[in-house]
Amino acid sequence: MTYAQQHQSEFVEGLKAFLRIPSISALSEHKPDIRRAAEFARSELERAGMTKTELIEGQGNPLVYGEWLGAPGKPTILFYGHYDVQPPDPLDEWKSPPFEPDIRGNDIFARGAADDKGQVYIQIKAVESLNRSGGRLPVNVKFLLEGEEETGGEHIEAYVKTKPPRLKADAAVVCDTEMFAPELPTICVGLRGLVYYELAVEGANHDLHSGVYGGAAPNPMQAIAEIVCALKDRDGHIRIPGFYDRVAPPSAKEREAWARLPFDEKEYTEKEMGAKELVGEPGVPLFERTWARPTLEVHGIRGGFTGEGAKTVIPARAVAKISTRLVADQRVEEAIQQTRAAVQKVCPRGVTCELKVLSAGEPSLTNPDNRFIHAAAEAMKQVFGKETVYIRSGGSIPIVGVFDRYLGVPSVMMGFGLPDDNLHAPNEKFHLPNFFRGIDSVARYLEILGQ
Amino acid sequence: MTYAQQHQSEFVEGLKAFLRIPSISALSEHKPDIRRAAEFARSELERAGMTKTELIEGQGNPLVYGEWLGAPGKPTILFYGHYDVQPPDPLDEWKSPPFEPDIRGNDIFARGAADDKGQVYIQIKAVESLNRSGGRLPVNVKFLLEGEEETGGEHIEAYVKTKPPRLKADAAVVCDTEMFAPELPTICVGLRGLVYYELAVEGANHDLHSGVYGGAAPNPMQAIAEIVCALKDRDGHIRIPGFYDRVAPPSAKEREAWARLPFDEKEYTEKEMGAKELVGEPGVPLFERTWARPTLEVHGIRGGFTGEGAKTVIPARAVAKISTRLVADQRVEEAIQQTRAAVQKVCPRGVTCELKVLSAGEPSLTNPDNRFIHAAAEAMKQVFGKETVYIRSGGSIPIVGVFDRYLGVPSVMMGFGLPDDNLHAPNEKFHLPNFFRGIDSVARYLEILGQ
Repeated sequence: MTYAQQHQSEFVEGLKAFLRIPSISALSEHKPDIRRAAEFARSELERAGMTKTELIEGQGNPLVYGEWLGAPGKPTILFYGHYDVQPPDPLDEWKSPPFEPDIRGNDIFARGAADDKGQVYIQIKAVESLNRSGGRLPVNVKFLLEGEEETGGEHIEAYVKTKPPRLKADAAVVCDTEMFAPELPTICVGLRGLVYYELAVEGANHDLHSGVYGGAAPNPMQAIAEIVCALKDRDGHIRIPGFYDRVAPPSAKEREAWARLPFDEKEYTEKEMGAKELVGEPGVPLFERTWARPTLEVHGIRGGFTGEGAKTVIPARAVAKISTRLVADQRVEEAIQQTRAAVQKVCPRGVTCELKVLSAGEPSLTNPDNRFIHAAAEAMKQVFGKETVYIRSGGSIPIVGVFDRYLGVPSVMMGFGLPDDNLHAPNEKFHLPNFFRGIDSVARYLEILGQ
Repeated sequence: MTYAQQHQSEFVEGLKAFLRIPSISALSEHKPDIRRAAEFARSELERAGMTKTELIEGQGNPLVYGEWLGAPGKPTILFYGHYDVQPPDPLDEWKSPPFEPDIRGNDIFARGAADDKGQVYIQIKAVESLNRSGGRLPVNVKFLLEGEEETGGEHIEAYVKTKPPRLKADAAVVCDTEMFAPELPTICVGLRGLVYYELAVEGANHDLHSGVYGGAAPNPMQAIAEIVCALKDRDGHIRIPGFYDRVAPPSAKEREAWARLPFDEKEYTEKEMGAKELVGEPGVPLFERTWARPTLEVHGIRGGFTGEGAKTVIPARAVAKISTRLVADQRVEEAIQQTRAAVQKVCPRGVTCELKVLSAGEPSLTNPDNRFIHAAAEAMKQVFGKETVYIRSGGSIPIVGVFDRYLGVPSVMMGFGLPDDNLHAPNEKFHLPNFFRGIDSVARYLEILGQ
């Protein structure tokens, strides 16, 4: 029996303590909890045998740093995760309070259970297990945990971009993704990038009565509809000139692998999404549409009248939240330029259009023919007893692109979440068998790398 | 010196008392004020010599009724107006409190000054003046004042549709419009109709993450943009099949008269609207676009995320407020059918679209070759010393269509407001010289009709 197996209930208690801290980065009244969570993580790193730990202070919430560098000549692994969580609203939909972890069946329910405290704790407890059982680690290890991933992660990016020598590593391990299906060991090798915009459209300098002025007055709300339709057609194809120029198609090998993934489209559509049918570019397979094709979505439109009843106003101003997802080999800066130019070109008569970038992250795609990824696939295969699959994710983890670009470090995305973990939603959970197998997988991974 | 001229300051004091009652129909906490305003109007009708007055109770706010029928063989005039007012928000933009009438220069500032208490008071004081000075009226007179014009006016419509014998009349006089320009006596002979819709679009049964599902999930917000663009093109032309089939063009005589109206397009665009340029159907003159052509406007879109910052949500549901203005000879019922059919036809794949009618009113157009309108034009000409112009309005006063359809009574719209009266906005005012000339005009009108 390994150290990890002997200490399962202790690890679960530790995770519960971590989950009890409401470290909600979006709400400023939780600043003290953010610090408590950072301190908690730092003390866990000490306990795991890190010879140096530190809260890196700067703008925003502290970064938690730890290192153990006692294996000269061996590779150095940089573990990344985040200790902040999403707000728990709507509270009344939770079956147990979000910050009172509750185990029901094989799942632990709490805000942050899967995203990302449970997965951060996997990393720490894997290292602790190796250290306690062998007295040392097979490779050099660094940790960099952040406290504002859920609110944009700007400060860690700014920090990493300064290329601090202490972050030098051979590979990063990111545990913040999910497995394709239960029991199926999964490595994510590609992420979409993101540019999130606010489009402000202005017509007259005050709201106008639609009876008196309708037929003569520019309507910014209508203008936004026209711009949105000009940017994306009814088939989901983006009409921004040049937007697809750099889009790299998935390799034949990837396409074949995706086609072999166990998948029930009817269940995905009707049960997981609760939708009537899937939409998107005709003729493009589903995983390619969600993982390897850019998209454009409008998230909300503010302005005018949306209350009860009828108000006949032509609003002076309207603002739309719009985002584009980018894929390899698109670049954020170029995408922004193309989008700006397209918006100006289709901006209707009588209004002005202003496009503001709220946040951005590069897409990333890692070549899986890489010893750090091979070793991860092998470790997970040994623990789960099944061949590891390579997938991509349609979501965005901007730090992966930043590690790649500024540190020259590939990221290995070993994720142990499940598709029904309710991330960002009520009743977030983490599957406890995955928690234990995650610890074993990460420990096994370091052992393989150290051989 | 006439009775009206002798009693100017008394009339202004009476108007002030009327304006001090915050009879805001949209806010239920003002129910007692609504009743106070109705009682005030009823007692003013008594004072004006009505032999019978009554608050007609039913659903909603009371109607105020009054009659004087002592001129057998002479025509019967039905005066219409409303004693309720719009909410005064935003309060901090008022220079004097909205329910403390303040006279500055030649204007009286208060909520309801022009819309419509000042104009209702003109009708009452004109009748009072004739009655007090001659002991009788030259024609038979009825009053029907309502208390929920600002919230839809459903109950007066329901009442009039029962064709109560007491409402029998030869013509209605509606004082709730404005003059085309200061000093220019104006009669409005056409109003646009209105159908106000709520368009609800549903995709998945819960909000989805745009990273995970973008490219496969239907987006109701995008769907609304597509529907709006499918219903109206970038030139402001409505694309609902059949929508223009019954649209009657203005007569050559009307067009010529409109072209002669004193009008500065630059001032209208830049000063009155605060817009950069006018939009709408190319080649169609401005007054035709705003008075004699149907329009479609989107007033607001609810759903998704519109707060600070970035949230990558594909909303499960979105709701748009959309209205169409109708012109003669369109019909509400047919327009609704056409719009419903068009929406279903363009409803995008993957979503369901439901169109709900929130309110509706028929358009109206009165032939000015009518003794009741000729007499009004003559009366105003005599009082203002200028030829009366005939215009239309792009707005909607549904009761006019209802009087026409259910009572067979043409409406004479003698309005004494001015374009800069700030209706529905802070610092609403009424021009006192128009108040006095309005009283004289209505009195003169009744005299001419009695000859």
